[in-house]
Amino acid sequence: MKIIVSVSDMHKQADRLRREGKIIGFVPTMGYLHEGHLSLIREAKKHSDIIVMSIFVNPTQFGPGEDFKDYPRDFDRDAMLAESAGCDIIFHPNVQEIYPENHKTYVEVEQITKVLCGASRPTHFRGVTTIVAKLFNIIKPHVAVFGQKDAQQAIVIKRMVQDLNFDLKILVAPIMREPDGLAMSSRNIYLTPEQRKEAAILYQSLMQAKQMIEQGERNADQIKAQIRSMIEQQPDAKIDYIEIVDTTNLNPVQQLEGEVLIALAVKIGKPRLIDNVFVRI
Amino acid sequence: MKIIVSVSDMHKQADRLRREGKIIGFVPTMGYLHEGHLSLIREAKKHSDIIVMSIFVNPTQFGPGEDFKDYPRDFDRDAMLAESAGCDIIFHPNVQEIYPENHKTYVEVEQITKVLCGASRPTHFRGVTTIVAKLFNIIKPHVAVFGQKDAQQAIVIKRMVQDLNFDLKILVAPIMREPDGLAMSSRNIYLTPEQRKEAAILYQSLMQAKQMIEQGERNADQIKAQIRSMIEQQPDAKIDYIEIVDTTNLNPVQQLEGEVLIALAVKIGKPRLIDNVFVRI
Repeated sequence: MKIIVSVSDMHKQADRLRREGKIIGFVPTMGYLHEGHLSLIREAKKHSDIIVMSIFVNPTQFGPGEDFKDYPRDFDRDAMLAESAGCDIIFHPNVQEIYPENHKTYVEVEQITKVLCGASRPTHFRGVTTIVAKLFNIIKPHVAVFGQKDAQQAIVIKRMVQDLNFDLKILVAPIMREPDGLAMSSRNIYLTPEQRKEAAILYQSLMQAKQMIEQGERNADQIKAQIRSMIEQQPDAKIDYIEIVDTTNLNPVQQLEGEVLIALAVKIGKPRLIDNVFVRI
Repeated sequence: MKIIVSVSDMHKQADRLRREGKIIGFVPTMGYLHEGHLSLIREAKKHSDIIVMSIFVNPTQFGPGEDFKDYPRDFDRDAMLAESAGCDIIFHPNVQEIYPENHKTYVEVEQITKVLCGASRPTHFRGVTTIVAKLFNIIKPHVAVFGQKDAQQAIVIKRMVQDLNFDLKILVAPIMREPDGLAMSSRNIYLTPEQRKEAAILYQSLMQAKQMIEQGERNADQIKAQIRSMIEQQPDAKIDYIEIVDTTNLNPVQQLEGEVLIALAVKIGKPRLIDNVFVRI
């Protein structure tokens, strides 16, 4: 496995691979890999000849007071895990390489970035779309794989790819979960053992919501109230949002029909955790 | 010469050319071609195997009340001129192909887009960077050629290319002028014969400024005052701005040193005309 740290080396490598007719699969990450990330590599491998994973904790997607500095990092462990999952190249630049002093350009998707996570993190998605656009230009993938855990991110990136006419395909891989249902996340490491137990309620409440819908419930308020009451029973849980939205424009729905996304963000102790489920009525 | 109207056809064509090892040179235009545009094709040919010219009047770079609807268009004449200058492919999409209904993504360069033309046209450069980023992704050029006439645009595009890590080279070709010095522009067609004569003052005033500098003048206010007084003698001239700025951050300079850009925008009757000159002290 190759490790590349400069944009110009990655440009050259990507160009060479494309001239050789190789299909480049790309998995963007902030590192501190878990089974979720590795599942993205395995998904990418189904569609590509060469897998490039980026490991870059992107400062522009963190807001003031968020955990950019504390975000867990362990490159050596990441490299070992990525290689064992079949990664061919890790792109691992430093912040100065990606955002030199004069950097002034941002990519912004309107409307769908202002709701859900975007409501409490107003500059988050601008940072995400900017870094992802940069990485697409650096790595020149044919296919890029994102995780369903960040459901809004995947929808925003798909919108950006279509709007900016990137010639690549976005794939979204299912959420990987711990045995008790907690969605895997690098931030789970922040949880105390007690909070770790509480955190399982997120998935349980989503499953409860799904069951209500299967039993005929169509009123979004009823379903959200049920999720809320389950989560509020956990002493360390602070709800950021619980929403049921249209899967394309992310507008809230009142009466469920077609495909909807049930999404939530809850602070449990230090970390803010997110989870979601798609339901087709 | 080939004419391509859909994004997906252009993607395929660009991919094929790149796999064959061809160097793609790109000249973005809004059509209604004049000698200035053709000089860009000739410049691109020095550096490329295949020349793609885009002809697209881009709605997002026009503000409310500007001349999007009236902007002169003559595709058949453009195609003939482009072919005679050595263009291989014209990319000529319609507005719906480039901005479908759900379009929500914009590329924005901060700071250097708020001054000069950006001061009186606040959404202009956002439209320019968005369409150019899209065209780069659609046409996949190795080299793109812009005109020095739109000096600020060239500086903004170079910034965007660097910031978003596009793997391509921007070339800037000199301003083409009419015999009396007027910078060629598709908008010159709006001038009445009387205004057409007045418009020559723009270049004359810039040459006068250059001469003052050659004779030792270093005070920006003195130079701008001289330009202003010459232009104000024309009955139909309404000055938008006359500025002397640093060529990288576009901040105004007081005492001239190093390389500066003297730039102006003046409404003469209907059209707003721009011109500029770089001076190295």
